[in-house]
Amino acid sequence: MTITLFDVPSKFEGQAFSPSTWRIRYILNMRNIPYKTEWIELPDIESRSKGLGIAPTGLKPDGTPFYTIPFIHDPSTGIYLSDSTHIAEYLEKTYPGPSSIFPHNTLGLQSPFADLFFSTALPALWKFIIPSLYEILNPASGAYIRATREKLFGQPLEEMTPKGALGDAEWAKFREGLGKVDVWYSKTSGPYLLGDTISWADIVVVAALTLMKVVWGEDSQQWKDISSWHGGRWGGLVDDFKKYTNVV
Amino acid sequence: MTITLFDVPSKFEGQAFSPSTWRIRYILNMRNIPYKTEWIELPDIESRSKGLGIAPTGLKPDGTPFYTIPFIHDPSTGIYLSDSTHIAEYLEKTYPGPSSIFPHNTLGLQSPFADLFFSTALPALWKFIIPSLYEILNPASGAYIRATREKLFGQPLEEMTPKGALGDAEWAKFREGLGKVDVWYSKTSGPYLLGDTISWADIVVVAALTLMKVVWGEDSQQWKDISSWHGGRWGGLVDDFKKYTNVV
Repeated sequence: MTITLFDVPSKFEGQAFSPSTWRIRYILNMRNIPYKTEWIELPDIESRSKGLGIAPTGLKPDGTPFYTIPFIHDPSTGIYLSDSTHIAEYLEKTYPGPSSIFPHNTLGLQSPFADLFFSTALPALWKFIIPSLYEILNPASGAYIRATREKLFGQPLEEMTPKGALGDAEWAKFREGLGKVDVWYSKTSGPYLLGDTISWADIVVVAALTLMKVVWGEDSQQWKDISSWHGGRWGGLVDDFKKYTNVV
Repeated sequence: MTITLFDVPSKFEGQAFSPSTWRIRYILNMRNIPYKTEWIELPDIESRSKGLGIAPTGLKPDGTPFYTIPFIHDPSTGIYLSDSTHIAEYLEKTYPGPSSIFPHNTLGLQSPFADLFFSTALPALWKFIIPSLYEILNPASGAYIRATREKLFGQPLEEMTPKGALGDAEWAKFREGLGKVDVWYSKTSGPYLLGDTISWADIVVVAALTLMKVVWGEDSQQWKDISSWHGGRWGGLVDDFKKYTNVV
């Protein structure tokens, strides 16, 4: 039986960018769990989720339910499930691997990690990457990103990325955010956050780095910067996950 | 050799309230490490820290260095150290116990926990507890709290605590914040966040709860509320730590 993983496509056929969906795809690939991606454009997520009876994962700024990818359908249990943390917990329970991604009773401690990582490391990233992401999206998802992000930041996409001295300062801020996470990593015997086995926290980090590498490309100055920061920690982690980057 | 633990006194002699210092005192008591509290009023922390060559732990809103308790002096190694997370790491390394408070390589994952817990669970608490805390402080520390917190919240202490329907809503918000932490706890086999042994995360949580119990008293409506919420989880955790509440 094959799990269906719902994800958002781009102009790069056979490639994926969503950092939340990459979390789940990495787990599926690591565990060799059979799955197939079903591609769905951003403005169709809400109606598709409602049609399948999939729960919203939060609220929009106007207080109405917010539906997000990833969500999965697993015919072997009949489940339809949204929210990457919930899906990870489900996969861990249903398809346990040789080593747990929540080892030593760390599920509780790791469960807020995705939000913590985003709020610690990524606030300065969005104004740089959203206009670049827009360029690789298909028209329907592109229009959705333009409308929602221009409203959020109060700026047209074309003026969103800070330039010149401000750009340098904001890029340095992004590096500083990742630097805080580097401090967490440096407190363990590494290379992973819990030592020598991959856990949910690493998957969250690498999935976000994968967004950057896919959107900007590995030859871009942005990726050259990021992958070299903090002793090459981020480039090294992404390399470690290379064997799990298949998109099916 | 006896460690000196610097803490802020109150009108309750032989009692302590600072949630950051309680983290360290709990560790010292759990490990039976000889220590003695040296009491220091809030406005004296900066000059005392500078005099002892103790590092600031952050920046004030105006960008100047911010000095905080707890800090310790350990004559057996000669160290002077501030920042509760750094002190916890130091004690763990220098005075290891039968079980680690950072077990299974979780120091990296636990190191942001104190900030995470405060930002998740406690934002709605301060307007309730600061005016009550003021009442139990000695004049010098009381004046310091009044000046800094009235500036921070833009309200006199006497008008800070929300009342009536707004008060009920804000108290419910505080409960909701703790509810998010309850979800983390409920994902483990408990009673502690990493299962059956006490870790740094539990110490952070219980130290903050100890502030509430000390300031409001265990017969107060506030403590009756808090200790009963979420199946009595918070009251239960504080009870578990009762044997470590000695103040010397």
